[in-house]
Amino acid sequence: MIAECPVPRAESERVLLGHGAGGRLTAELLEHTVLPAFGGQNGPLEDAANLPGFDALVMTTDGFVVSPLFFPGGDIGSLAVHGTINDLAMRGAVPIALSVALIVEEGLELGRLEAVLRSLGKAAQEAGVPVITGDTKVVGRGAADQVFITTTGIGRRLPGLSPSASDARAGDAVLLSSPIGLHGTAVLSTREGLGFEADIASDTRPLHRLVAALAPLGDRLHVLRDPTRGGLAAALNEIARDSGVAVDIDEGAVPVPGPVAAACDILGLDPLHVANEGCMVAFVAPDAADAALAALRSLPEGSGAVRIGNVLAADGHPGRVVMRTAVGARRVVDMPLGEQLPRIC
Amino acid sequence: MIAECPVPRAESERVLLGHGAGGRLTAELLEHTVLPAFGGQNGPLEDAANLPGFDALVMTTDGFVVSPLFFPGGDIGSLAVHGTINDLAMRGAVPIALSVALIVEEGLELGRLEAVLRSLGKAAQEAGVPVITGDTKVVGRGAADQVFITTTGIGRRLPGLSPSASDARAGDAVLLSSPIGLHGTAVLSTREGLGFEADIASDTRPLHRLVAALAPLGDRLHVLRDPTRGGLAAALNEIARDSGVAVDIDEGAVPVPGPVAAACDILGLDPLHVANEGCMVAFVAPDAADAALAALRSLPEGSGAVRIGNVLAADGHPGRVVMRTAVGARRVVDMPLGEQLPRIC
Repeated sequence: MIAECPVPRAESERVLLGHGAGGRLTAELLEHTVLPAFGGQNGPLEDAANLPGFDALVMTTDGFVVSPLFFPGGDIGSLAVHGTINDLAMRGAVPIALSVALIVEEGLELGRLEAVLRSLGKAAQEAGVPVITGDTKVVGRGAADQVFITTTGIGRRLPGLSPSASDARAGDAVLLSSPIGLHGTAVLSTREGLGFEADIASDTRPLHRLVAALAPLGDRLHVLRDPTRGGLAAALNEIARDSGVAVDIDEGAVPVPGPVAAACDILGLDPLHVANEGCMVAFVAPDAADAALAALRSLPEGSGAVRIGNVLAADGHPGRVVMRTAVGARRVVDMPLGEQLPRIC
Repeated sequence: MIAECPVPRAESERVLLGHGAGGRLTAELLEHTVLPAFGGQNGPLEDAANLPGFDALVMTTDGFVVSPLFFPGGDIGSLAVHGTINDLAMRGAVPIALSVALIVEEGLELGRLEAVLRSLGKAAQEAGVPVITGDTKVVGRGAADQVFITTTGIGRRLPGLSPSASDARAGDAVLLSSPIGLHGTAVLSTREGLGFEADIASDTRPLHRLVAALAPLGDRLHVLRDPTRGGLAAALNEIARDSGVAVDIDEGAVPVPGPVAAACDILGLDPLHVANEGCMVAFVAPDAADAALAALRSLPEGSGAVRIGNVLAADGHPGRVVMRTAVGARRVVDMPLGEQLPRIC
């Protein structure tokens, strides 16, 4: 995964919005620019990494730049807490501490900043995790857009769980905890004033309790991933690539709320590419599928959990995600290239 | 320290540059806006905090927004590593892991981003700490200024050391590890093209080895603080306030390099208020002063260590920092109010 840039970079090459979108351009930026700088000897940069010397602890960091700051169902403050908790949860960990670093634009109304921070504090309290340290920087007008928040989380692994994107196996059941497309369409609709925001609210919420509910599965839980930037398509492609397996999805089984489908139709978006902030995919051993679904459905945030597909037996196409459509056709689900929805998280 | 805002905030109140400068306005922002939002039950937000349930571990986070990205002696990449390592070191800890979150402006030259990241990776490697996880967000042109970096560090406390800004005691010797004023004047001079940058280079460097050299002092090492934003004046005032003691400094003993003094004279700055990124103050028991100085001077980064003053016996002015000038007068060293030097770190 870690390689030197294969060709000298032209002077003129510049960062594009798509480099931050979670798709192929992001992977290229990581592979050619970020990882080589860190020497590579530390292995791939993961969303949540083991803390050296402390097997039970994982660490994750995320910058939040969502625009607008407030949207139906949440705001940048609650999102910064949920996103970080969920990165820990996808490694089978529950959060034990958060840090919060603010970069604030000069001139932001203090009342607006307070509202964001109150929401952040409330989200942390509801998730049962303390904010233990922080930092505040102020930059001049025009040098940032209102406020950016970087949240870092430390989590403790649940005993017996070690899910990894590289651990999907032939025959695994692919589960999805709730409908897709809500977060991205809610933010985009609010930002652009498209009017869907009356019917659509972000699904932003913490997922660590859902993961804890899966803990009894132990090593029959193979993969967890929350389909944020790049949506379900990116999450499934990453898992297929990292595990070297082919994934088969049943289009009819993937829950897309009506208003999300309508919004995506009009905007020319594929719901599979739209970011989510409150659902996850779980790959589990076939004999654990029913128990896993029951566990997910035992909590409100997993009440809509469904099985959406399975991992194929070795078929000569490792790394490929295929979707069976309603009429029985099969189409390849590609990794999104770049930016459809900038500043979505 | 944690209190509700005593009066309703006017709609018109806005964030000022000075709110991020490390002085009195920063303290007000923390006290009235940030801390109440986090419920207060977690205690004061410190630069580096104990990780709940893991007594040996501390966590710190810092956003870096320095402008320009490159300056004599360093750049935003190395600074982001050193600043975070030093926050850990001031709690008596050595770094065991870093995370790095980038917020990049669309259009930044990839070569420039690579240079920053290479410097960051090199600084981490030289300090012996791995970057274990990261995040990259891209925002549109004009929504950020080139690149902001938030670094979070986890450190392991050195056995027997528990320095705290609230632990200064009457009679303590006040030591300073190296001359002051270099970082702030180097950055300012570069940004404004003042021409001092030929003679002044930032002192940015990691201080954890200096702290490790002090470890044999054990509980005779009372306070460590690196005088970053707000300079030596802010650091000493915070210690005096948090410990409830009066601090007496000998002006003639505080090393200010000639070019720094000249730059400050012309710019109307007090060198005591200028940010540093490679020196620290240590408060040690009187009988440990000589051993501490010898330990500091045993390393290149502490070769210029000096004693600059002491903590007074209870004198009725706890929280006050006083400086004896060359002509024998005494003046109060105030906490800087707000911003002298924006975007210095």
